[in-house]
Amino acid sequence: MSLADSWLLPDGMGEVLPPQARQIENLRRQLLDVFHSWGYDLVLPPKVEFLESLLTGAGHDLDLQTFKVMDQLTGRMMGVSADVTPQVARMDAHSMRQQGVTRFCYSSEVLRTHADNLLGSRSPIQIGAEMFGHAGLQSDLEILSLMTDSLLLAGAEQLCLDLGHVGIYRALLSAASLPSETQAELFDLLQHKRLDELPALLAPWQDQPAVAWLQGLSQLNGGPEVLARARQVLSGAPESVITAIDELEALVQALSAAYPQVQLYLDLSELRGFHYHTGLVFAAYVPQLGQALAKGGRYDDIGRAFGRARPATGFSTDLKILASLQAECHLATPIYAPASILTDAAGRAQVSQLRRQGERVILTLPDEAEHGARRLVWQEGQWMLQTFESEVQA
Amino acid sequence: MSLADSWLLPDGMGEVLPPQARQIENLRRQLLDVFHSWGYDLVLPPKVEFLESLLTGAGHDLDLQTFKVMDQLTGRMMGVSADVTPQVARMDAHSMRQQGVTRFCYSSEVLRTHADNLLGSRSPIQIGAEMFGHAGLQSDLEILSLMTDSLLLAGAEQLCLDLGHVGIYRALLSAASLPSETQAELFDLLQHKRLDELPALLAPWQDQPAVAWLQGLSQLNGGPEVLARARQVLSGAPESVITAIDELEALVQALSAAYPQVQLYLDLSELRGFHYHTGLVFAAYVPQLGQALAKGGRYDDIGRAFGRARPATGFSTDLKILASLQAECHLATPIYAPASILTDAAGRAQVSQLRRQGERVILTLPDEAEHGARRLVWQEGQWMLQTFESEVQA
Repeated sequence: MSLADSWLLPDGMGEVLPPQARQIENLRRQLLDVFHSWGYDLVLPPKVEFLESLLTGAGHDLDLQTFKVMDQLTGRMMGVSADVTPQVARMDAHSMRQQGVTRFCYSSEVLRTHADNLLGSRSPIQIGAEMFGHAGLQSDLEILSLMTDSLLLAGAEQLCLDLGHVGIYRALLSAASLPSETQAELFDLLQHKRLDELPALLAPWQDQPAVAWLQGLSQLNGGPEVLARARQVLSGAPESVITAIDELEALVQALSAAYPQVQLYLDLSELRGFHYHTGLVFAAYVPQLGQALAKGGRYDDIGRAFGRARPATGFSTDLKILASLQAECHLATPIYAPASILTDAAGRAQVSQLRRQGERVILTLPDEAEHGARRLVWQEGQWMLQTFESEVQA
Repeated sequence: MSLADSWLLPDGMGEVLPPQARQIENLRRQLLDVFHSWGYDLVLPPKVEFLESLLTGAGHDLDLQTFKVMDQLTGRMMGVSADVTPQVARMDAHSMRQQGVTRFCYSSEVLRTHADNLLGSRSPIQIGAEMFGHAGLQSDLEILSLMTDSLLLAGAEQLCLDLGHVGIYRALLSAASLPSETQAELFDLLQHKRLDELPALLAPWQDQPAVAWLQGLSQLNGGPEVLARARQVLSGAPESVITAIDELEALVQALSAAYPQVQLYLDLSELRGFHYHTGLVFAAYVPQLGQALAKGGRYDDIGRAFGRARPATGFSTDLKILASLQAECHLATPIYAPASILTDAAGRAQVSQLRRQGERVILTLPDEAEHGARRLVWQEGQWMLQTFESEVQA
């Protein structure tokens, strides 16, 4: 690389310039304050951990996404955090060890070897909230509500929540008796929505009720009316399947009442994060974005590897993407003052006071021409704030 | 590593738990708001860049401190940011290319292969401000004032500013005629304050006035009265040396007037960052910390490698250390409410309003016992805020 292009940045590792950086900062504060007001305590996860603790229980995908570096102090391999969720689970299981329900939130830039999608970021600012220690519907509802509140606060419009429940597929699969290669292919077809190939795959086992239910699952997506259809299609299915449908129904009712402006979509064959999630899974979409704006779900027992299996549910989003959906922010017009204002105590006090009031006061340095639409000017023995109309921008 | 210790963190890569994380967040906001009110625009530097751009002009020390990772998209080496300053210089030189004076600020967690000192952090949150495009005394004063204001705001007590000027040593060295190995040894002795070995080293060149000045330099440290002594000891020295003393004197006057509570210490043989800095260098100390609390100085032309040499000055500090000097913060006592409060619209509205007013309202989930000193309780057809004295903590 020649010096001429030494400013090129790696793909997906972007910098953020003014005024967008300030916009992201403002949104970060708004969201962290909402999390705080709901009782979620801020934590700062380490940017680097030993690989074993970073990847324990997290699965192969995260391993591939994690940059590896050598710890020169111990010779052991470390990983740069690519996902905050397992780190927060470790903090709950080991660092805090609180009794009862524990609520955490975080905002942390993570690094990934590959972006999730083409042209995507490899350095998202992951911001989110996690709750540990409660297994019921109410904690799923709280996390879903907190996510929805956060996205609406950030200005997301025409928001759609996509709800699924991996427990349904899990229960039906264990009720069916399918060879493992067929199970793998079924998973693949469902995950990639290649639904027209399902009948041929499952034909040999069509006489098992559970296989018929599995095939029916692929049709169970759409508005909340899907749940009534699911009760018919899955009639006779294992108890846990019916319980999952009951839970989804309760969530739909509560969310519809609290957020009538938000569209709800159900997909009972949604398998995103199947190897990781244990119950409700959800994602939020807006029309202008080709990927999920936020996502989350239940992932009970994630802390087992750290010696403490606990119920867990949470969500996260990318602060950079969320901020990019907002109208561009404009920084307030600053006040300019000659640097010489600092030579007398009264001038210093006046500048300090304006700054404390939230004004930006920028010093015009020697050799700089005086400029700016708002200026502190020395007049009749005192500094006066004047507006220069000719420099006011439309 | 067994699973039993999979929660161990690498030395110096610490996590931050509640309530300290919130304390750091609060201080971060205060400092970024001060920077903003002085006209410094926030930027978010990338956490990872190609090694060439990250290390260009930065020197060997930074190379050793930088974690290297492979870019799997290009096969090229990247470095994880270990110091934000060269990144911001690149942003000024290339990304922004503004005319006139440009002011930037940042807060970014950096990673280092080795800590600066024993038991030190390898993951400081570097927070600071940089000014580009002005070469004079006034910009040095602005940066020094901004640093001092920030540290005082953060609660630093018995603050001492240590001022030096590498231009003095540089000018005297080039005026003297010393073999390069003697130059190297002189630098080493001065940097490690092994001053008693100076006479022996310089004896053979004692007849050169510049060598006598260099030797005299090592005694020129102490309070502001050092500057008068410097004028005597360095009488006849090159013009640029006298100019540097004039500048230091002007800074001392301005800082004494603006910050009478801050102690000033001058050290004309201070060579910290000599290969990097080009003029004024400074550091801030507090009694309870064995290392500099904040540091900075002038580093003109750092952007040359990126095609744009500009005057530059700035400072930075570690947000984690700065926050650790503060008294421990206590989170406000939350209000607890049963989760069932969300089932009616009035309850939802009341909870939302309390949260918007800055209260923490935490839902007591089913299976949890009711608890907390402040609770929303259903009484006479409405939700009332009640205090339970028995649970009030002293």
